[in-house]
Formats: sequence, C-alpha cells, structure tokens
Amino acid sequence: MIKYDKLVTNAAGRVVPEIINGENHVAYQGVGKYKPTGFKHAPRIPSCADYPADGNKLVLTLKEALLKAGLRDGITISSHHHFRDGDLIALQVFDIAHELGIKDLRWFPSASFPSQARLTQYLEDGTISHIEGSMNGPLGRFCSEGKMKKLAILRSHGGRYQAIQDGEVKIDIAIIAAPTADAFGNANGTTGPAACGPLGFALGDSQYADKVIVVTDNLVPFPCVPWQIHGNHVDYTVVVDKVGEPEKIISGTTNITKSPDRLLIAEMTAQFCEEAGIVQNGFSYQAGAGGTALSIGIYFEKILRNRGWKARFIRAGSNQYPVSMLENGLVDYILDGQTFDLEGVRSMRENPNHLDTSPFTSYNYHSKGNFAGLVDVVILGATEVDLDFNANVVTHSDGILLHGIGGWQNCLFSKCTILPIPLFRDRIPVIVDRVTTLCGPGELIDVIATERGIAINPRRTDLIEKLKNSKLPIKTIEELKAEAEAICGVPDKPEFTDEIVAAIKWVDGTIIDVVRKVKQ
Amino acid sequence: MIKYDKLVTNAAGRVVPEIINGENHVAYQGVGKYKPTGFKHAPRIPSCADYPADGNKLVLTLKEALLKAGLRDGITISSHHHFRDGDLIALQVFDIAHELGIKDLRWFPSASFPSQARLTQYLEDGTISHIEGSMNGPLGRFCSEGKMKKLAILRSHGGRYQAIQDGEVKIDIAIIAAPTADAFGNANGTTGPAACGPLGFALGDSQYADKVIVVTDNLVPFPCVPWQIHGNHVDYTVVVDKVGEPEKIISGTTNITKSPDRLLIAEMTAQFCEEAGIVQNGFSYQAGAGGTALSIGIYFEKILRNRGWKARFIRAGSNQYPVSMLENGLVDYILDGQTFDLEGVRSMRENPNHLDTSPFTSYNYHSKGNFAGLVDVVILGATEVDLDFNANVVTHSDGILLHGIGGWQNCLFSKCTILPIPLFRDRIPVIVDRVTTLCGPGELIDVIATERGIAINPRRTDLIEKLKNSKLPIKTIEELKAEAEAICGVPDKPEFTDEIVAAIKWVDGTIIDVVRKVKQ
Repeated sequence: MIKYDKLVTNAAGRVVPEIINGENHVAYQGVGKYKPTGFKHAPRIPSCADYPADGNKLVLTLKEALLKAGLRDGITISSHHHFRDGDLIALQVFDIAHELGIKDLRWFPSASFPSQARLTQYLEDGTISHIEGSMNGPLGRFCSEGKMKKLAILRSHGGRYQAIQDGEVKIDIAIIAAPTADAFGNANGTTGPAACGPLGFALGDSQYADKVIVVTDNLVPFPCVPWQIHGNHVDYTVVVDKVGEPEKIISGTTNITKSPDRLLIAEMTAQFCEEAGIVQNGFSYQAGAGGTALSIGIYFEKILRNRGWKARFIRAGSNQYPVSMLENGLVDYILDGQTFDLEGVRSMRENPNHLDTSPFTSYNYHSKGNFAGLVDVVILGATEVDLDFNANVVTHSDGILLHGIGGWQNCLFSKCTILPIPLFRDRIPVIVDRVTTLCGPGELIDVIATERGIAINPRRTDLIEKLKNSKLPIKTIEELKAEAEAICGVPDKPEFTDEIVAAIKWVDGTIIDVVRKVKQ
Repeated sequence: MIKYDKLVTNAAGRVVPEIINGENHVAYQGVGKYKPTGFKHAPRIPSCADYPADGNKLVLTLKEALLKAGLRDGITISSHHHFRDGDLIALQVFDIAHELGIKDLRWFPSASFPSQARLTQYLEDGTISHIEGSMNGPLGRFCSEGKMKKLAILRSHGGRYQAIQDGEVKIDIAIIAAPTADAFGNANGTTGPAACGPLGFALGDSQYADKVIVVTDNLVPFPCVPWQIHGNHVDYTVVVDKVGEPEKIISGTTNITKSPDRLLIAEMTAQFCEEAGIVQNGFSYQAGAGGTALSIGIYFEKILRNRGWKARFIRAGSNQYPVSMLENGLVDYILDGQTFDLEGVRSMRENPNHLDTSPFTSYNYHSKGNFAGLVDVVILGATEVDLDFNANVVTHSDGILLHGIGGWQNCLFSKCTILPIPLFRDRIPVIVDRVTTLCGPGELIDVIATERGIAINPRRTDLIEKLKNSKLPIKTIEELKAEAEAICGVPDKPEFTDEIVAAIKWVDGTIIDVVRKVKQ
C-alpha cells in the first residue's frame, strides 16, 4: 500500500494528500467551511442475550480478553492517556500482540508518551503499522525520521472524538485502563490507588468501538460510582496488579514559572485581559499546564480577589492552582478534561463543582455546538507563529514532530485566544514568515503576548479599540518579528525531504497540513 | 394506510401483526431468542459551524422553536414523563401544531397521563395520528375503544430506548421539558422550582432525535450542573413561565398500604426473601411505588437493621422510604430512574450516593448488558397472572388498556422476580387460565405472593428446595387459583372484537402480544 496519494493544495495553501493509507480524506477548506454530509458511525446492535446474565464480565487475563475480543492482524486498537507518562497497559497490549505474532496493528491512542518509547521495536518489526494520535517525544521523532510504515495522522482531542463518531476511524478493540471498575465494566478514574481523574478521552472509544476491554487494579462491587465509563458499553473486564502510576500524570510544566521574562509575559497578558474587559465578574477562562499559563491564572486570581469578583468556570487540565481557587470561592466550577496533578484528582473526587468533561462535551466540532466557544479567554502555547497569526504546536524549530495537538485547536474557538510566548527560544525567533506546520489558522488567534510587546490580530478591531490608550506595549506582529531578528538574526529553516510522514487534521476532519521527513 | 397486516402466531402462541402502520416488525421468538443483526441508528453528523458561536441557542417561543425544528405533517414528536401527571409542555406542543393546521403527528412520549386526556381532541381531528408509548388512564381507554387512527405500540422503558437506538422509531423533534437549563441546552431535573429528579427518559431522545428542543422555566448561566442532558445534543432552548407541576410527580400509590391483606402479603414476601437467602449483607432490590412494594421495603429495612447489615443498592423510583434508608446508612446507593416524591428529588440533588440512571444504563436490552440483571430481587405488580406464571400489566380485568409497561418487563431479568398480588380484586380472581394480554413470559417470573399463599415457579427448583421446610404457606399456583375461584367463582372474560388496537413489544423489539378493541 502506498502511504499517501492525490496531493492537492488546500485552502491554507498547504499541499496535502487526499488519500492516506488507502483511505479517502478531505483537504482543509477554511474555518467552518467544510460541512459533513454523512451519518454518525453506527455500531452493530448488541444484545443482552450475548452477555452474562449476572453482569459479570471478568476474564482472567488481558491476553484472554484480547483474544476473546478478536485480536488479529490489521485491526485498530485504541487507548487513552489519562495516566500520561505513567500508563502501564498499552505496552502490555502490544507485548501480547507481539508474542502472538500479530501484525499491522493501527494504534490509536489519545496520546503517546516517552515511557512508551520502546514500542518503536514493534513499529520496526511490523507488529504495529503506525500510530494515529498525539506523539509526545521519542515516538514523534521516530515518525519524523520517516520510519513508520504508514502515514501518521494527528488529531486534536475534539478531532479524535469527531473521527470516531463520524466513522472515520473504526476502533476494533478499545483498551480502557481504569483506576476503579466493577465486573460489569462501569469505570472511573477518580477513585482507587491509581486514581488519575476523569476518563473522558476514552468516552468515544467506549461508545463506538466494536469491543471494549476495561482493565483495572481496583475492582469494586457493582455499582462503581461514578460510572464515567458505562459498563453497558463494555465487553470484558480484567483485573491486573497495577494499572498506572498516577504520580506520573504530573506534567513537568505544572509549576509556576520562575523565569523573569515569562513572569513579565504572564503579567502583561493578565493586564491585557483586564484592560480589554475580558476579566469580569462571572468570566471564564482556560489556562493550560505550562508555567506561563499558570502564572496568568495567579494574576487572574489576584484581580478577582481585589475586585471581589468570582469567575463562573475554569476550563482545565486542573492542578492545585484552579483547585485552590475553587476551594476559596473564586470560581463556581472547574470543567476538567484531564487532571495534571493529584490535587486535581482529589478535588474531582470530592468536590461536586469540579466536573469531569470529555472531548464530546468540550471539543467535538461535529456536534450541535461544544463548550469551547463558551470560554471567554484561552491561554495557549505555540512553537511558532507567523505574520498571519497562524500557529504551529506540533513541530519544533528543527522540524521534528515532538508534540501532540491536544485540545489546542479546539480551544481556538473561544471568544479570545491569546498565545503568550517568548519572542525567541534558544536564540531562535518564534515569529516566522510562515509556520513550519500549520495547526491553527490565524483568523482564530487573537493576541500574541511576548516579553517585548503584545500584537493584536488586525481582525480584532474591537480589541485594538479597547486597548488604544493602554500603557501596555501594543505593537504589530511585524514589529515584534523585526525586534527578534534584530537580536537573533534570521535562523536557517529546518530542512525536509519531500516525503510526508504525518498528516495534521483540522477540527472538522479535514487535512490542514502535513509533516515531512527531516533531512538527517 | 392499513393499521396492521401479516398476522402470525408468535412463540408465545399469540397472534400478532408483523406489519404495523406500514412498517415491518418481528414477532416474539422467546426470551433471548431474537438476535438483532443490524446497526444502531446513525443520526446525521452536525457541525458547530451551523450553531451559534457563543453557544446561545435561545429562541423566543416554543412555537418558533418548533417551526425552526421543522414541524410539519406526519413527523414524530417525543416527550418525557418525568413530571408524570404534572407535565405542562406536551399539551402546548400539540396546541401549537393544531393551531398551525399540522396533521398526522406520531406522539412518542415515554408515558402519557390523565392530565393529558384532552389530547383526544387532536387524535380525533387528525392533528395526532396515534400514540406510541405508555398510556395511563383516559388515553389508554380511547385506544381500547378503537378510536385511534393508527395502531398504538406500547414499549417498556428499556424497549423505548432500544427502539430509538435501533432506529425503529426515528424521532424528528424531541421536546425535553427541563426544570433547569442553560442557553446552550445543558439541562437537569434536580434543580429549579419545578425540580422533578432525573431526566433519563429523555436521554435516548436527546442522543438520536433529528432536532432537540429544551424547554425550561429556570435558565441559569452556563454551565447548568449537573448536565443530565448534554447541550451538545440540543438545537434550541426555550424559556417558559412554568414547565411542570412537580407536586404532581407524586403517585397516588406512594404510601405504605393500610390494607391488612396487603400488609400480610408484604410481610410474607419479605419473609420469603429472608428464608430464601436473598436478603443478605450487600444485597440489592427494586421495589416499586405501590403500597405493598413500599411495605416490603419497610420489612427489608427491619431485617437489615436487626442483623446489622447494609444493602448495596436499591433500584428505584425513589421516594421518602429508600431516601431515609440511604440517609440512615442502611444502603450504599440508590440507583434512580424516576423520582416519585419531592424527598426523592431533594436526595438526588444533595446526596452523591443517590444516582440518576437512565433506560440506557438500567434497561436497554440491546446493549452489552444492563443493570436489571444485577438486582437480587424485584418486587412488581400485575393485573393478571396465569398458570404458566405469565403476567399482564397493561389491561384490566375488563380488557381495557389502562397502564403502560414502564420498567416492568425490563425488571423481570433480575435474579428473582416476585409479584406480590392480592388473590382477587373486586371479587375477580387475579390468577387466570391465560392472561388477557401477555406482557411478561412466565419463565422470568419466579414467585407469586398472595394473602393466601405463595407459589414458586416450578422452574425455580433452587427456591423450592430452600423453602421446603418453611412455615410460609407455599402452594402451587393451581391451588391458589382454585382457592380464589372457590370464593369468587370463575368470572366472565372480557369481550373483544377482532380488531387490534395496540401492539405490545417485548424488550428486544419483537411483538409479544396485542390489545384488541373492547366490545362496547
């Protein structure tokens, strides 16, 4: 099979294939332009008559569950990444597949992490044909080097749900590692020794996969409460010794930044939001887990406290900071798609106003709306931004694929999207003529905040008007770029071969860009 | 259109049509025998691009929402019955349809109630062609008299979800009356002035209907928490003055019985469960809202208290009695599909161990198992039982359709099903040669408990063995029937015409029996 074919230039001017791994895809047509015409994926109708009358779906081992679920060559196996770098199950699944001599599996994780790097051996020996999902670190590098047998496809969290829902990716076996479950298959991530928070990334898998296996190390009598995953969708349950290492859900970037430059960016961003009238009583925001974003949250907290205001909700990736705001009465709700530390897990377990969300509620673009558009302001990162405010979040300045898209694309639909970024990293300017990989169209990115100035997207005349008398260093993006280049010079561009190694999907399932193999 | 055609004798020996209102149906084949071969209903893929960017889906009036949703001749409109006899919205919907001259609507409620009796005028003038759903009281009588233009179809709660999920009933517009909602369409029944408990009966409607309208009298800022209905499924939201009368969710039968005979039945039933080893630490039960069932719950409570035991869960229809058990530490969880009094509503709102369920989790037979099979014992009612333990729950001794199936059929899949019933009502014996309308196959009904003796289904040799030394009056069902007839005589059977007016579905979507027009 050829990896890709039928190259076209999409609405963003990027050359992308419309055939990937033998299947048809659609090239990006612009924000809100592509209209789906089909029907949602229709799973086969099951019958209770084919399931244990007493609801006990336990099988003895993961291997037995996989065999019962029909593990065979060429199928698609999905997994979630709520344990982040502490997942212990996906590796076991592919060890079993390898031991059984299974070939050509498509792995469809919501994300992969460095602790899963040794799966490269199965990508090399043909057990796994390719990965469709976020690749953080070594697996991304492996892909960038052109070593994967088929083309990788990267999707946002919402795009992953959309692809499952729309039948673009048919999951044969979904593996759901669960910190607590009952024998019927009800499962949650908030309780048990390996508690990791919500299980929302596995929701679509549970709803639409042909077979669903829940793996837990904490079996409780029915009912497992809360049932974030419905046992009614589950085929088999398996008990293992240890399902994940919850201490590794902590991202390295969940501490407030100590960098003076980044603190300055955070302070200016918060001030910008205040002057623009975005921060107000009842407002809402999403700040990621990065050090700068967390610091902006601290500044927001100060503003709320000083004014006697209360935010309506924080969209998270939660950790100790939004949790303390919730507990101190500075926000009504945390809407949380994945927890980034154990304080977040505890809060979600204990506090009814700390709600677990899923890519369906939050991000799915092929839905009757989603939560993303209801957020007043989101604070996101980027590896590169260009003069049209287009941004890149997956490849580094050396061109290597090292990050997943996460919820980044989906969040762009908030009422105001701000990218607080340093003007340069390792003396390489972050503002470029044209982003290496286009992940987010500039029309959805409103503000770039750097340590040397803030650029407002010219499309946002309302924001420009509101800030016209500000003492903040409001500049054009061209000015910021020139400042960076005056300091660092214009860097060499990364060198690529012509070979495409990964496709980047937009939130509607169309292909917005590709990643090419780097020159060694 | 002919109302029905292609009569066949099904596996229960009942003559049923396989064509109803021009559509194909399958005759009952036996418990667990019919295996679905198709795929779940696949709704059209929506796009956020077609919904308001800020999530505000408010339209000014119900009429405007109906018109935007495509109200037109011949479509199917669904509604839920969580307000029971206090619903205020379904009548308005059909008033609007009538005013607009719309004809031939199929009304697909989860149940209809006496307060909706004036819809007979729209059934007569052709605004509504027919009802598919439980008909309690006057609408059932109207149907029994052969006045409906098309054939009615009655389904259990689980069967209704199954029919929606399987695409057997395609809902064009779902109307979801909600005690609280936000403009995005997230909605719940637990908060607000008209709080009525869960909204689970509307879950399938929200997931699969073409258009979904949420109607509320308590609009809150996003997010409406809990979101029992996901706004991501909702097209329009409407605010009205009053959405329902929550005081009318109270069923007339939610008081403990004062009848000495019924108290005796309750006591014997509880004692039976104790002697059979069903009541034990960690056991589970479902007792309905009837006076006898409630009294059995009180006896169960006494046993638990005396032994120092705790039930794992109570399946409900909740009211003050299970709520007090939960609050007194006699049960871990209430799993609640509809609340029967305001104490139940309060508890569901306040107590995280009082969980709202849906016909999907609890009852859907075309699922990978459901909760019904996990319940140790269910206590149900019946209007008639026959010598094969078959039971009727929809027609009265006069042959008139006066009740819906509710969750009754679904509950039969518990580990033990007991029907505590008086041996006769108004001097008419309840045990008959052959039930007028077959709703539940005898192989799923384990015990009949009457004031004059308890009959164990001969299939349950395990129960017979356990009770062999009991002092309880264990008798055969033939003995019980003979006793009743010795007192009351053998009553005349109701007289029917040949005309079929309603089909009764089994939990798997097959037709288990029909209701015929009564002779006037």
